Amino acid sequence: MTRDPIRATSDDARQTARQMLAAMRHAVLAVNDPETGHPHLSKIACQIDAGGVPVALLSGLAVHSRALATDPRAALLVEAPGDRGDPMTWPRLSLQVVAQGVADPAGLRDRWLRAHPKAAVFIDLPDFRFWRLMPQAGFLNAGFGAAFRLTPADLGLS
Amino acid sequence: MTRDPIRATSDDARQTARQMLAAMRHAVLAVNDPETGHPHLSKIACQIDAGGVPVALLSGLAVHSRALATDPRAALLVEAPGDRGDPMTWPRLSLQVVAQGVADPAGLRDRWLRAHPKAAVFIDLPDFRFWRLMPQAGFLNAGFGAAFRLTPADLGLS
Repeated sequence: MTRDPIRATSDDARQTARQMLAAMRHAVLAVNDPETGHPHLSKIACQIDAGGVPVALLSGLAVHSRALATDPRAALLVEAPGDRGDPMTWPRLSLQVVAQGVADPAGLRDRWLRAHPKAAVFIDLPDFRFWRLMPQAGFLNAGFGAAFRLTPADLGLS
Repeated sequence: MTRDPIRATSDDARQTARQMLAAMRHAVLAVNDPETGHPHLSKIACQIDAGGVPVALLSGLAVHSRALATDPRAALLVEAPGDRGDPMTWPRLSLQVVAQGVADPAGLRDRWLRAHPKAAVFIDLPDFRFWRLMPQAGFLNAGFGAAFRLTPADLGLS
């Protein structure tokens, strides 16, 4: 008999995931490295825009930007670190995303600088660019045996 | 003029990376999801074996195990969290790895249980398996402007 480790999605799971996205200031980004076919990982500054979609300000010199320009399929891991106990019991949200370069970043700039004031020194450099990371599917792990699948609607997105 | 954000690899960078691997108990794993072509992210328990190679004990029910059985190309992100300041300045090590299922886990079991005593309740379940995550290349980011490329030899591996 196979045990299904996934629980039915609950309102608690939806609320936890939405709160984690609202509080997000950093995340782990995975992209497809076109040179090797391996996923490539980096830690990035990340927050949601006014519509709840994760946004990142990335340098065009970095591997992740070159990879996203070739293949927009990516993933994001958002963690809610506790201050003690076993880190494997702390909630984390794994998102399958599609990256879109932002053509008009005017509406994002002030919101970004409020959350990331140090970005003022590089936000206007020509090689930095905003990307929207559109969630396609999500997976919330709120500790051993508490795993939930989430749709964009579960995350408050249409 | 293009700025190269990568510094020449130093002994300090090699030592920092080796210390981070030796202290590692958890990491973020990225695999290629064969169903979607997206990378897929999860937080895993992970530590090095006696030879310095990262090892993980994974459930066969999880997405990452099914993905690795199809495509062994993966990535690992190891973080060394500080206790204050900007998390984007804390060191992190990004590894390109190839996963290999471990046929004879006898030499790994005791070492794993010393570092992860709670694993005693599931380590002998038939769907759990050890994987070696063989580093092919590494990238150390020790804060803004301090990025280094690392070879397996830089990590103390042959």
